Amino acid sequence: MNDLFLRACRREPVERPPVWMMRQAGRYLPQYRAVRERADFLTMVGTPELAVEVTLQPVDLIGVDAAIIFSDILVIPQAMGMSLSVEEGIGPRFHHPLRSPADLERLRDVVPEEGLGYVLEALRLARRELAGRVPLIGFAGAPWTLMSYMVEGSGSKSFARAKRFLVEEPRRAHELLGRLARGVGEFLAAQVGAGAQAVQLFDSWAGALGPRDFREFALPYLAEAARLARGAGAPVIAFAPGAGWALEEIADATGADVIGVDWQTDAGVARRRLAGRAVALQGNLDPCWLYAPPAAIRERTREMLEAFGGRGHIANLGHGILPDVPVANARAFVEAVREWRPA
Amino acid sequence: MNDLFLRACRREPVERPPVWMMRQAGRYLPQYRAVRERADFLTMVGTPELAVEVTLQPVDLIGVDAAIIFSDILVIPQAMGMSLSVEEGIGPRFHHPLRSPADLERLRDVVPEEGLGYVLEALRLARRELAGRVPLIGFAGAPWTLMSYMVEGSGSKSFARAKRFLVEEPRRAHELLGRLARGVGEFLAAQVGAGAQAVQLFDSWAGALGPRDFREFALPYLAEAARLARGAGAPVIAFAPGAGWALEEIADATGADVIGVDWQTDAGVARRRLAGRAVALQGNLDPCWLYAPPAAIRERTREMLEAFGGRGHIANLGHGILPDVPVANARAFVEAVREWRPA
Repeated sequence: MNDLFLRACRREPVERPPVWMMRQAGRYLPQYRAVRERADFLTMVGTPELAVEVTLQPVDLIGVDAAIIFSDILVIPQAMGMSLSVEEGIGPRFHHPLRSPADLERLRDVVPEEGLGYVLEALRLARRELAGRVPLIGFAGAPWTLMSYMVEGSGSKSFARAKRFLVEEPRRAHELLGRLARGVGEFLAAQVGAGAQAVQLFDSWAGALGPRDFREFALPYLAEAARLARGAGAPVIAFAPGAGWALEEIADATGADVIGVDWQTDAGVARRRLAGRAVALQGNLDPCWLYAPPAAIRERTREMLEAFGGRGHIANLGHGILPDVPVANARAFVEAVREWRPA
Repeated sequence: MNDLFLRACRREPVERPPVWMMRQAGRYLPQYRAVRERADFLTMVGTPELAVEVTLQPVDLIGVDAAIIFSDILVIPQAMGMSLSVEEGIGPRFHHPLRSPADLERLRDVVPEEGLGYVLEALRLARRELAGRVPLIGFAGAPWTLMSYMVEGSGSKSFARAKRFLVEEPRRAHELLGRLARGVGEFLAAQVGAGAQAVQLFDSWAGALGPRDFREFALPYLAEAARLARGAGAPVIAFAPGAGWALEEIADATGADVIGVDWQTDAGVARRRLAGRAVALQGNLDPCWLYAPPAAIRERTREMLEAFGGRGHIANLGHGILPDVPVANARAFVEAVREWRPA
């Protein structure tokens, strides 16, 4: 029974920081690719047995201290009625992005037990199969990030279309963001009900907004979703990559137990800035450093661990693991954490 | 004779801040698109008469307080022997990106008067045609940004290939960055010799590096290029978008006269952080805000001007103007600056 991760979320004493990796159930694992050969990405997400199979792989193969349910942040817009496809090497794409007021009106409200029952089922199944070996994490995309995908239709370099929607139709944007915040928060609470022992909110495109827009269009809805999730009683992790300047505001507004730190932010600086607040930190090795020779990975990982200081720290990458990283290098990162002890 | 821009670079008193826009000679102008119909992008860059024609357009049409020579940051790798194409809607692409030690050895050193004489000729011609109406700015890409394009072959989302080069072959990377720093610095000095009254260094992909890597692979070479450029006697502007956390370090390491502020950074925070240093600030309206109705653009522009405080500030966007912005909106931004007076 390894509860290092949950103890670190609550800033309790630990022998060493727990470690997991964002996107740890992913293409860098040959065993993941083997499942992926039998089923496409959305089938894997939508089939609890397959989702659970890959969720458990990094626990068995890499030795991480937490499992995160295999899913996708775009299951929410999909459950609201938007048709989604995910093409290899291209990424997710909505067939009919939001372009008119009628598109907005057509969206259904999120009812987790109906539209997202398959995610809840996967969580129940994963929790059972883990049998207490390591804690299970649920997750969802934050409202601004979901809205930007829904408006753009896909990933984007500048998110100009989504930001144009904010500046041209701020009232409609706020309305949609409010609906998403409720849906995201209720979905996270339902995930806790189904067995998730912590939940992470990903505001993956936080960095597409300047401070003023982030404060108006992202942070209040991230906070509302976090508030609803906290009601379910499990630790909440808030991660807004690209908005490292806002760590304090994110901690204060969301009341999250854990604040994710991206790789662009200096670990020591993040720690000092949040020292006065009752939050744990999660992060933040640059995923590109997993391309380095294992000895260099170990050295960088130790530097990172020392900068965070051990207590109230969950070791992770500062972004998802890249698909072409050698498994041995991912293992070097995880092992460097497992071997380290705070001074 | 409008010398507001040069006075602001030196932090001398001004009636109001000068204003120009990154990429102001660009596709949002119908007159630019008319030239572009007669010649492709690289022909425009390579033909001094065409480059000068579009360089002058925003001065005549929008009323900006400075002209920036129409060119591209990738002229340096091109002059080093790398074959480049620029396709509409796709962006620049090197046909043979750097992939092996032999690729690196094949690169020629930058000799501005030889490989880049056409840029210098465009500056001479532009300076003559401007006849003192507004100052003329030259520019170059910073070493890390050039290297990442040369290794990736094109723009990239994660710059994983370029960063992989840093972690796998740090010694070769430092060698190439050193060569680029000398070439960039000498090119900027030659631009001043040819008539540029200020020069800007663009480290456009600074945000692709975490703090530790930025300090090792980007900042020292940005600083070396700035040092060589400063020797020519004109003000130097250093702009490293995505690295707002490093404003102080950039100011200290480069000795630049002006520090560019990206749109992700709060203007008031940037001003406070650099208050003790002898630098002017340039920026930083979010280019996406030019999608807003003109009244909203004017309001946001005034907020931005007040946050910078007037003295030692060059009004600009926090990134290049987007190609589909209505001309009237660009004009609303420029006019809002021209009408504003410090309290």
